[in-house]
Amino acid sequence: MFRSALKLHATSTAALTRSMSTAGQKIGFIGLGQMGGNMAINLAKAGNHVVVFDVVQANIDAVKPHGTVEVMSSPRDVAANATTVVTMLPSTPHVEQVYLGKDGLVHALTKSHFLIDSSTIDPGFTKSLAGRLAEEKGATFVDAPVSGGVNGAKNATLTFMVGGSDDAFAKANPVLKQMGKNIVHCGDVSTGQAAKICNNLALAIEMVGVAEAMTLGDKLGINPKVLAGILNTSSAQCWSSTLYNPYPGILENVPASNGYKGGFASVLMRKDLGLALDAAKSAEASVPLTSAVHQLYNMIVNQGDGQKDFSYILKFLEGKKE
Amino acid sequence: MFRSALKLHATSTAALTRSMSTAGQKIGFIGLGQMGGNMAINLAKAGNHVVVFDVVQANIDAVKPHGTVEVMSSPRDVAANATTVVTMLPSTPHVEQVYLGKDGLVHALTKSHFLIDSSTIDPGFTKSLAGRLAEEKGATFVDAPVSGGVNGAKNATLTFMVGGSDDAFAKANPVLKQMGKNIVHCGDVSTGQAAKICNNLALAIEMVGVAEAMTLGDKLGINPKVLAGILNTSSAQCWSSTLYNPYPGILENVPASNGYKGGFASVLMRKDLGLALDAAKSAEASVPLTSAVHQLYNMIVNQGDGQKDFSYILKFLEGKKE
Amino acid sequence: MFRSALKLHATSTAALTRSMSTAGQKIGFIGLGQMGGNMAINLAKAGNHVVVFDVVQANIDAVKPHGTVEVMSSPRDVAANATTVVTMLPSTPHVEQVYLGKDGLVHALTKSHFLIDSSTIDPGFTKSLAGRLAEEKGATFVDAPVSGGVNGAKNATLTFMVGGSDDAFAKANPVLKQMGKNIVHCGDVSTGQAAKICNNLALAIEMVGVAEAMTLGDKLGINPKVLAGILNTSSAQCWSSTLYNPYPGILENVPASNGYKGGFASVLMRKDLGLALDAAKSAEASVPLTSAVHQLYNMIVNQGDGQKDFSYILKFLEGKKE
Amino acid sequence: MFRSALKLHATSTAALTRSMSTAGQKIGFIGLGQMGGNMAINLAKAGNHVVVFDVVQANIDAVKPHGTVEVMSSPRDVAANATTVVTMLPSTPHVEQVYLGKDGLVHALTKSHFLIDSSTIDPGFTKSLAGRLAEEKGATFVDAPVSGGVNGAKNATLTFMVGGSDDAFAKANPVLKQMGKNIVHCGDVSTGQAAKICNNLALAIEMVGVAEAMTLGDKLGINPKVLAGILNTSSAQCWSSTLYNPYPGILENVPASNGYKGGFASVLMRKDLGLALDAAKSAEASVPLTSAVHQLYNMIVNQGDGQKDFSYILKFLEGKKE
Repeated sequence: MFRSALKLHATSTAALTRSMSTAGQKIGFIGLGQMGGNMAINLAKAGNHVVVFDVVQANIDAVKPHGTVEVMSSPRDVAANATTVVTMLPSTPHVEQVYLGKDGLVHALTKSHFLIDSSTIDPGFTKSLAGRLAEEKGATFVDAPVSGGVNGAKNATLTFMVGGSDDAFAKANPVLKQMGKNIVHCGDVSTGQAAKICNNLALAIEMVGVAEAMTLGDKLGINPKVLAGILNTSSAQCWSSTLYNPYPGILENVPASNGYKGGFASVLMRKDLGLALDAAKSAEASVPLTSAVHQLYNMIVNQGDGQKDFSYILKFLEGKKE
Repeated sequence: MFRSALKLHATSTAALTRSMSTAGQKIGFIGLGQMGGNMAINLAKAGNHVVVFDVVQANIDAVKPHGTVEVMSSPRDVAANATTVVTMLPSTPHVEQVYLGKDGLVHALTKSHFLIDSSTIDPGFTKSLAGRLAEEKGATFVDAPVSGGVNGAKNATLTFMVGGSDDAFAKANPVLKQMGKNIVHCGDVSTGQAAKICNNLALAIEMVGVAEAMTLGDKLGINPKVLAGILNTSSAQCWSSTLYNPYPGILENVPASNGYKGGFASVLMRKDLGLALDAAKSAEASVPLTSAVHQLYNMIVNQGDGQKDFSYILKFLEGKKE
Repeated sequence: MFRSALKLHATSTAALTRSMSTAGQKIGFIGLGQMGGNMAINLAKAGNHVVVFDVVQANIDAVKPHGTVEVMSSPRDVAANATTVVTMLPSTPHVEQVYLGKDGLVHALTKSHFLIDSSTIDPGFTKSLAGRLAEEKGATFVDAPVSGGVNGAKNATLTFMVGGSDDAFAKANPVLKQMGKNIVHCGDVSTGQAAKICNNLALAIEMVGVAEAMTLGDKLGINPKVLAGILNTSSAQCWSSTLYNPYPGILENVPASNGYKGGFASVLMRKDLGLALDAAKSAEASVPLTSAVHQLYNMIVNQGDGQKDFSYILKFLEGKKE
Repeated sequence: MFRSALKLHATSTAALTRSMSTAGQKIGFIGLGQMGGNMAINLAKAGNHVVVFDVVQANIDAVKPHGTVEVMSSPRDVAANATTVVTMLPSTPHVEQVYLGKDGLVHALTKSHFLIDSSTIDPGFTKSLAGRLAEEKGATFVDAPVSGGVNGAKNATLTFMVGGSDDAFAKANPVLKQMGKNIVHCGDVSTGQAAKICNNLALAIEMVGVAEAMTLGDKLGINPKVLAGILNTSSAQCWSSTLYNPYPGILENVPASNGYKGGFASVLMRKDLGLALDAAKSAEASVPLTSAVHQLYNMIVNQGDGQKDFSYILKFLEGKKE
């Protein structure tokens, strides 16, 4: 969801990078869902030999035709066949299982291994996992969660928020460049996860703020397009009003103008807010709105609307069913 | 606080307008505080004959040297000496008093009168006041609250959000152009107020969202400047992160980098949020975060920090005294 | 909703009082809805000559058969025919209209008049109304909102929370005793209203607290009856758990066990919470949960469930439709 | 904090029980802090041979003089010397360490072992721990968190909320009877923990509700004692108003009347609310007020007042420092 190049850390000349340093590399990839599948396809298309594992055969079948793709029967086997491994999994327990489970990566790791986890998970777990892999096996781990959604994954325009040492970031960069556009170094291990959840909690709060303003303005008799124009040029300007307005018909090609289909599901926003709250609890940070917004998405999910885009909060507040 | 010209409604060639249509006009002005005083000075400097009233002599003294300024002893006298009157007052009861009180404007109004209220007040009261003045006296009333703060008032770069008919807007425009830069027509009477409070409720919510993200990120070990850079180029981008970041030292020339002095006082944000909640109650709109944020600013005020800029919420959440 | 005699202030020997001091008195009564109608009937049954006004003919017809009931065509006429007048109206604007409107009570008031307002309204308005009636007409006004619901009104078991001087309370007491059981002197004028809204905000918060505990406990596998038993004998004990449990089937004869029909409608709880927030705003009190709960009942109303009893919050939290 | 016998499940004739079935039994006890120390002393005083472990020597020294107390150097050794073991520890990680750590109980467990955990911890962990101990070692585990505070622990008047099978409850009962008064069977393993956190979330919400009512009423001019009297006999009645009123001077012998010293520290309430939120997250329950209250206690702790009793919320809302 990054809308422009991040000057500070963005690397350049992706095409050059691709032809030069990493093409032909052997790269492991575990987790071939909607995001991971497209990311792995981009690695395969760029000429890498991709060594994959997924528990769903259909996910594997969708990746195989796009280049040199070798299928393994466990995470352990992936690690046994590739020293660079990318993981893209739905939640903390999945990551724990893939890394530390019975046939997990850990059992085949050496000090040559370089692990990139692009899942969005608990930064506390990330930190302890990185420590354990380094200590027990000498392996290097970076967290690199993404923003940009399925389209970003397809078009290799994802933003990666990377947590790791300078050396580790330098090593991750050419791999990630083949799947994304902006590669941001956030700091030490786990700060990629931290950046992701901080961004998403602010995003959720801002979206609800815009939804409240649009709902109230509408009831007070302002034309919603005029109100959106005012917000967008004023101190309330934000991505959620400018590029993702939750009021139907303000913008084309956003979920609000398409029955709240597609986009970023409310149930996933609830998950990210849950991670933010866990992190806030362990850090003893006061986050009253994150907490309130988490409950609002909880209510949306409990009312059966969890698959609707998170901008659906506007309809929830209106009390109307779309 | 508008950061760029609003294309839809913004008028142009302010200089031309000033030299042409309104210079030399007699304009009443009631309420010469920090905002109103500077606005009245701009009217005087532009060559208008300004007929003023204020209850504080020092406010009057500050305006008098700047042009043709005539001082009246009541709102009624202002209306008796000028058919166009601008009011800039702190709250709904003040506006009620100035318009409808014992020596209020209403007693001298005729159908020639044109009234512009730039106070930020209850849109419900605005609507009923406009109706009453039209019905009883045939006078025309528009609401035109501002954004842009004291600096905008000084530099005549305010944004005015105007509620009134097309004709009334056309008539208000050249007057407002002498005090501001963007003159936005929001819709019928009271929609200027509605736009203002919708903007400010979204602003407050977004500010708290950014404060929660920055506080949490800081505790999780991300460098605050890096985190701000990520937010600013990502889906959490908003004015509060980009141009008014609440974390000290990210931006120069914002209150957060100056001990939270200056800017927009928390007690004033509480007032605007109170107006938003009143409007939401009468409109039966659900505004859970507006409501939560109002209480947060209530707590800040009750702890004695109401004069601090509203970005002080970051310090409140940290629990530290600045 | 008082569950036992209030020792401190409760008066006694209601039967004696009735036969002695007030029977046969002429008493005005304005507002003959579900509550007021039953209250007026009790006054009529006790032998008073009741002088009534209501805008709905059916309400008048329901009261007439129960004793000496004289029908007036305006509040003014009621005051012209009775020096003691009770009002029971739905909201602040109704009270304003009945007291101060074109044919309002005020126009016929004298210093002999004694006015008892049992409506639940804004305590700020109550205070200014009492002041004005005293100043302009020398009349005495007390606020005496009730708890106990329609059944309390029918059975003359209401609790009255009375705001007024000691003398005024002494004068109100025998009148109120004919309609209620507990007559509590809260303090000066408007403290009856204050007590009512403080009680109801705490009630609403406690109800939501019990609903959250019951919902969560249920999902965690505790038998709801066992959990209710634990709450009821523990530090979470409250009226909402003990006598009005929101979980269906725990108690007989509560709305939760009858499809959330009857009881105290969510839309009325929202109204009382709105009054509490208005009062808190003018008193600058921080009331974060009152505010949050007001928004929850707002959502319930906006989803079309405003007529359901306020214990319906449990189903709202579950996300299921009953 | 249970205030009367729970009829449904309470067992009787404690004295008989003590003299008969358990005196002289060997019982392990791990965790001799303020609560656990007093509980272990009661077991020793009742004639049991108590086999203890704690990491703090002073805690051990305080227990030793009160009977036959044998000190072990690890949890494992406790289990090797006693088949019934009670644990009373501050948090989930401590429980994990004591049961499953390097020298943990698990290493010496047999199918004869009976384990009673009186800590307040995550019910999800409790369930998985019980399952693992049964599966791997055939041992029986019940959760039995308490209410009643340090005084309850001293006087053996605690309430135990027990999760386990009927048989396990029957076996736990005579042991717990020596340390408490009400022994409540909540259901299967982990429902004791669930009951405890459901009670405490409702308690916290009710306390804040009472604090808001008392604060607002005070500002509106009602005498706090009169208002407390009204709440206590009305639909807002609750333990927090009746027996633990947060307004100073209403009740004697509560923390509010003693500078908010003693009682149940805000930081501990925050911990229990955190457990409630974790449980709600895994159960997908909507708990908006639990969430809001958790943040309020977070703010209190972050402002440095975490050691004050949880009724201190009243002062926090007032914005005044005590």
